[in-house]
Amino acid sequence: MPNSSDQHGDRIQPRTLKGFRDYLPEVMILRERLIETAQKIYRSYGFAPIDTPALEYLDILLGKGSEETDKQLYQFEDHGGRSVGLRFDLTVPLARFVAQHAATLGMPFKRYHIGTVWRGENTQRGRYREFLQCDFDTIGTESIVADIETVLVIHDLFRAIGFSRFTILVNDRRVLSGLLQNLALGRQEPAILRALDKLPKIGLDHVADEIISCSGASMKQVDRILAFAGLEGSNRNILEKIHSMIAGSAIGESGARSLDQFLAGVIAAGVPTERVQLDPAIARGLDYYTGTVLETRLDDLPEIGSVASGGRYDSLVDLFAKQKLPGIGASLGLDRLLAAMDALGMTQPVRTPADVLIPYFERDHLGDYLQLAARLRESGLAVEVFPDAKKLGKQLQYANRRGHRVAIILGANEFAGGICQVKNLASGETSAVPLTETLSEIVLEISRVLEINRNQ
Amino acid sequence: MPNSSDQHGDRIQPRTLKGFRDYLPEVMILRERLIETAQKIYRSYGFAPIDTPALEYLDILLGKGSEETDKQLYQFEDHGGRSVGLRFDLTVPLARFVAQHAATLGMPFKRYHIGTVWRGENTQRGRYREFLQCDFDTIGTESIVADIETVLVIHDLFRAIGFSRFTILVNDRRVLSGLLQNLALGRQEPAILRALDKLPKIGLDHVADEIISCSGASMKQVDRILAFAGLEGSNRNILEKIHSMIAGSAIGESGARSLDQFLAGVIAAGVPTERVQLDPAIARGLDYYTGTVLETRLDDLPEIGSVASGGRYDSLVDLFAKQKLPGIGASLGLDRLLAAMDALGMTQPVRTPADVLIPYFERDHLGDYLQLAARLRESGLAVEVFPDAKKLGKQLQYANRRGHRVAIILGANEFAGGICQVKNLASGETSAVPLTETLSEIVLEISRVLEINRNQ
Repeated sequence: MPNSSDQHGDRIQPRTLKGFRDYLPEVMILRERLIETAQKIYRSYGFAPIDTPALEYLDILLGKGSEETDKQLYQFEDHGGRSVGLRFDLTVPLARFVAQHAATLGMPFKRYHIGTVWRGENTQRGRYREFLQCDFDTIGTESIVADIETVLVIHDLFRAIGFSRFTILVNDRRVLSGLLQNLALGRQEPAILRALDKLPKIGLDHVADEIISCSGASMKQVDRILAFAGLEGSNRNILEKIHSMIAGSAIGESGARSLDQFLAGVIAAGVPTERVQLDPAIARGLDYYTGTVLETRLDDLPEIGSVASGGRYDSLVDLFAKQKLPGIGASLGLDRLLAAMDALGMTQPVRTPADVLIPYFERDHLGDYLQLAARLRESGLAVEVFPDAKKLGKQLQYANRRGHRVAIILGANEFAGGICQVKNLASGETSAVPLTETLSEIVLEISRVLEINRNQ
Repeated sequence: MPNSSDQHGDRIQPRTLKGFRDYLPEVMILRERLIETAQKIYRSYGFAPIDTPALEYLDILLGKGSEETDKQLYQFEDHGGRSVGLRFDLTVPLARFVAQHAATLGMPFKRYHIGTVWRGENTQRGRYREFLQCDFDTIGTESIVADIETVLVIHDLFRAIGFSRFTILVNDRRVLSGLLQNLALGRQEPAILRALDKLPKIGLDHVADEIISCSGASMKQVDRILAFAGLEGSNRNILEKIHSMIAGSAIGESGARSLDQFLAGVIAAGVPTERVQLDPAIARGLDYYTGTVLETRLDDLPEIGSVASGGRYDSLVDLFAKQKLPGIGASLGLDRLLAAMDALGMTQPVRTPADVLIPYFERDHLGDYLQLAARLRESGLAVEVFPDAKKLGKQLQYANRRGHRVAIILGANEFAGGICQVKNLASGETSAVPLTETLSEIVLEISRVLEINRNQ
């Protein structure tokens, strides 16, 4: 960098912004595996990938999530003087996207979208300001089949990741609307639901205070809301109580009927009963939900909150399109899930994707090392060649620290004898293997060592 | 969205910002395949994934790329009054990252990074302001092995994507430095190299004008520079001429010696001679390169420019760390490559990842349709269930438009008879297959139809 030494005589402190973080290979390898699992499951249901810009016109984003997402929005003027913002979720961009491309896409339209979103959150709550969302959504149908499938996808996904103890909590916003209508609190619904959404975080008393202060509800009304949110028992039992508490409210009754169908369909499709729990306290914090809402709780780590959440938003696209385009979907909380898997001991840290390291110490044989590596890769192995002709001991130290499993050692003697040493880096054991034309014996020996490693 | 109808009485026009674009499934499915191929090749050489924030402190980014990247930077003040910018490449964040985490990472450190970058470019040149980079880099070694491996990775990657006609153009910035030193133009090097980098875009005459205006060089000096850049012939031939033209310049001679080793190593590792071409005009536009530079040209579409570029930057990390951490790497131009593959007819558009569609038209059998889909997925198939119980004809129309290949049709008669119809959507042919416990006959028939489709 010839021209910058005078500009940058002082070193710049390498640092990340508050609320942002780097992902080192140890975490990123696991993150990529999770993403690949999500892609595989989403695709298996016919969800197709899309992508949208990180930056959108400000008026596309403002007023769509909640007062909180508006406040947290990263916004600025671009080079052309346009007011722009960084997306805070993938659902609002999806609504804009389907409104813009509806004719080309055809309906129903099922998409997944894996992308970064930004929210200027208060970092004191341990929240990050940049995170990855893995969303899947179905647009263009009000059919309960799409709601049922949302649960099926989450169920398949968590099993594929390796979880057996998790619960999908479901509810319908319309039964909450019905209750509030019956309590003459219909107009204060958004604020009350935002307060209710905080229940697991701040507890009953604080939710009660917040409902009173934001809606002017009486203690008696608050008790009714919290009694409803606290309904317990079998799904059938809770459904019966809901039906009676929202009786007379048209919207409440349509929500309750939808829940009947929804729960029956999920069970008929083969999801074990204990994995789906009706929970009338589930409201979700975003204003755009209009029907089914759901969260996913890890039974062994309920305190970390929902790791996959979503719901139905039948009016969001109306803001951008004349056409009626209802939608439903959910989002996998990837980073929270990774933290949970770590806490539950479900992850084995890996620092390199290459099982095999070839040390480089006979300078004149560089071409041979590189060719051997190339041919082992052709047989499907991941192989790293150490770049510096340092002492073998140093290179093996590197291999151990990095987590390679096998070293293929070729010194002057080995080249002369037409063999190589296949070294199990975990045990230190070494076998001499002939360097034949097909390399089949080396590949076999490497596979044997990797197999031993896997079983330990 | 109960609270936004008054705020948003008027519909918001759905649109993307100038220079930004949406990716529809047809393009995105191909893009994901390219990403997966890149990941596979990078991993097979031991490159491990990392990720860094999209936003960095402004002083991390400014003055690192070129005057142009500084001008194009998206910058603003965040909620805390910090000056921040959106990353314009993945190399400067990598330099910051390795300076910050060097002790944890251990050296040499090989990483790949697939991430979005932003540049407020002039869109009239058909450029986008947001694009995805797929970088791989080796940090912490000056060994020529890392330079050689950079070519090997690009070579493997392009073959894996399906290209056979491509050329990797290589050069070393130090031979250009040597030439300019010998012409007493050493101090004007960055400006002259930036001008030279534009050669394929603006042509010889304009480059000559720009060199004169930016450096005050004489016509004679410019002729020498352009003669050097225009050297043609075999690599051996060009190398000989380079050696003579930079004789006497220490930096030039070290560059020429490095090119000798580099080219010999690439050939020794098994890359066909015709795929690697020494080209003294290659300079790259970014100021941080200090040695090897390379570009990749598609022989059948040279006019689109380089589709994979990179080089060595041995002083970039110095700006952030006391430790000397040289680096080399390259970046795959994913979107340009996609456009090229489209132009060359190498892509078959696909609009859904699911081969199989199950129409839904017997309302009472929803559970059966969903269970059948679940069990077919277990056997590895991707299966979509149509969400609305519309007429069969409508659902088959959808399947054809979307590009599903097989429909599994189950009406009242089929349920009664314990069979299903497996329909080849391309030919219209249908076979009745028994719905056995194991589904093995259905899976076989689907595989048979998919096989026929693939071979057409």
